[in-house]
Amino acid sequence: MAEIDRMLVANEEWARDFADAHPVRPARAVAVVACMDSRMPLFGLLGLSIGDAHVIRNAGGVITEDTIRSLTISQHLLGTREIVLVHHTDCGLQTTDDISFADRVEQATGRRPPWAARAFTDVDDDVRESMRLLKESPYLLSREVRGTVYDVETGRLREVV
Amino acid sequence: MAEIDRMLVANEEWARDFADAHPVRPARAVAVVACMDSRMPLFGLLGLSIGDAHVIRNAGGVITEDTIRSLTISQHLLGTREIVLVHHTDCGLQTTDDISFADRVEQATGRRPPWAARAFTDVDDDVRESMRLLKESPYLLSREVRGTVYDVETGRLREVV
Repeated sequence: MAEIDRMLVANEEWARDFADAHPVRPARAVAVVACMDSRMPLFGLLGLSIGDAHVIRNAGGVITEDTIRSLTISQHLLGTREIVLVHHTDCGLQTTDDISFADRVEQATGRRPPWAARAFTDVDDDVRESMRLLKESPYLLSREVRGTVYDVETGRLREVV
Repeated sequence: MAEIDRMLVANEEWARDFADAHPVRPARAVAVVACMDSRMPLFGLLGLSIGDAHVIRNAGGVITEDTIRSLTISQHLLGTREIVLVHHTDCGLQTTDDISFADRVEQATGRRPPWAARAFTDVDDDVRESMRLLKESPYLLSREVRGTVYDVETGRLREVV
């Protein structure tokens, strides 16, 4: 069975137990920016309920033009004012570098990507760099941003200061 | 209390009950691309377990350079081969258009964003456009992609064909 078919079957049970609808504006006025890693069910590990927070995720949880676009919409259109970053231990982007990754894609597809993978070595430094980029963005209404690292071995979240 | 402090407190309980670690490669070899909307706890509504799938989310769940970057890493570095799109009803991006949104940001911040908000009107068309963009990307190893719309009033997921 294709993965989507398993998801559609699982969703039937979810919809049967579905309790109530929520408004489009996040109740806690916060946006989370996190890595796409498969080991981070953010609602569970951050204690979020349905309707609480926007959730933006990409490879690394890094700040790109698309992250800024999403946060600008989140703040100007839907009223969020805080940003929480969630990076994590054992990230795939720590196992490569931008040149090696571009080489690998080029070998497999014949095309070299014009964008960088955004590989990194130190996760705390990567969180601090993301906080800096958000604080410098001229499009955000609020630059209240704090960053964390999630330990995928223990389930524990640690703030980066 | 700042939202992050509430999250750190909630995470203590999560970490106490944390069962076991999982490998970095998604067990079901699938990546989900979804909107950032606060009403979509994707693990729950798709029946995902920890470690199953990459989760990429932005405003609208649209395909941008950053989405392609994340999916390319997901496929070349971490072995996923299927993509499932999750858009939804009552999206904030259906309440504006790209010009009005840029006007609003410019009025509030004095700076006009050089990127488009990616507003849309018909959600099924938006899913089909995303599927088309993914199938055309030269960087992906697999272009197996299927799209869905989640109904935020009922909890039900519907495939777009």
